Amino acid sequence: METIEKIRAAIRDVPDFPKPGILFKDLTPLMADGSLLRGAIGLFVDACRELRPDKIVGIEARGFIFGSAVATALGCGFVPIRKKGKLPWKTHGKAYALEYGQAEIEIHQDAVTEGARVVLIDDLLATGGTACAAIELLRETGADLLEVQFLVELDFLEGRIVLGDVPVRSFLHY
Amino acid sequence: METIEKIRAAIRDVPDFPKPGILFKDLTPLMADGSLLRGAIGLFVDACRELRPDKIVGIEARGFIFGSAVATALGCGFVPIRKKGKLPWKTHGKAYALEYGQAEIEIHQDAVTEGARVVLIDDLLATGGTACAAIELLRETGADLLEVQFLVELDFLEGRIVLGDVPVRSFLHY
Repeated sequence: METIEKIRAAIRDVPDFPKPGILFKDLTPLMADGSLLRGAIGLFVDACRELRPDKIVGIEARGFIFGSAVATALGCGFVPIRKKGKLPWKTHGKAYALEYGQAEIEIHQDAVTEGARVVLIDDLLATGGTACAAIELLRETGADLLEVQFLVELDFLEGRIVLGDVPVRSFLHY
Repeated sequence: METIEKIRAAIRDVPDFPKPGILFKDLTPLMADGSLLRGAIGLFVDACRELRPDKIVGIEARGFIFGSAVATALGCGFVPIRKKGKLPWKTHGKAYALEYGQAEIEIHQDAVTEGARVVLIDDLLATGGTACAAIELLRETGADLLEVQFLVELDFLEGRIVLGDVPVRSFLHY
């Protein structure tokens, strides 16, 4: 079985999480398997290498799990995008709508210099709300956003459309 | 300059964060430097290798940044301990006191099998409240907790004392 199919087989469907009607893709069983974790990180690393990024940017919290391991493997720096109030230095912030209410994410103003080549990584693309806010934050820093990468994309939610014209790559599709 | 001293030089002191009187150790500048990130991950990896862990356990959220990269480098699985309500499957939970109110963290019941050799990783040891709760959670799973490792330890807060008799290792001390 190919790596990608082994990863797919390890993803656990959890019905009605976080609320009724949602079929949640639980990636923790693949993370807990050393060979599959390396395999998943390797997919990102191979895709990033040709892009020659200076930094990998990861979105709190599951994006940290994939993003920092990819950055370490590539020898790049890692930049966290965090929920509001978690980063201690001067930040850019971006609010975005949730189904009920809104959320806000932040990036340190000095985390990415103008023109830096960055790849944005998260575990899963669903409706794209968080990723879209993260892309706008990176634009504010003046970064050169090369690509947005996800391990899993839920095609039927069409989140890719809201991300605009930035290149998007996902390794598994549902 | 040695790796450890370069890492120390990259840590930024932020006064009065998250509240007046606290001098926050901001590790994001070292994460953003590819060479220092690799250096920091290498400290954990070298310390873990002799322990021969099956899994690396990381505490949300900054523990994910170090823990998953260490697990990937070692070829181990990675297990997240998360804030209450974030893990979709059956969990063990542990509440612990904060200065005001309390918090709760969780681990998946099937994340670690009885007798599995695990190392718990977080970025920084302060008062030890979260780490202590994480250790108790791991005891509930029946894991063999080999060591708890931190990049930074704030010695003057004496968090090490509350962790009991589990081996504790930190690479930088303040």
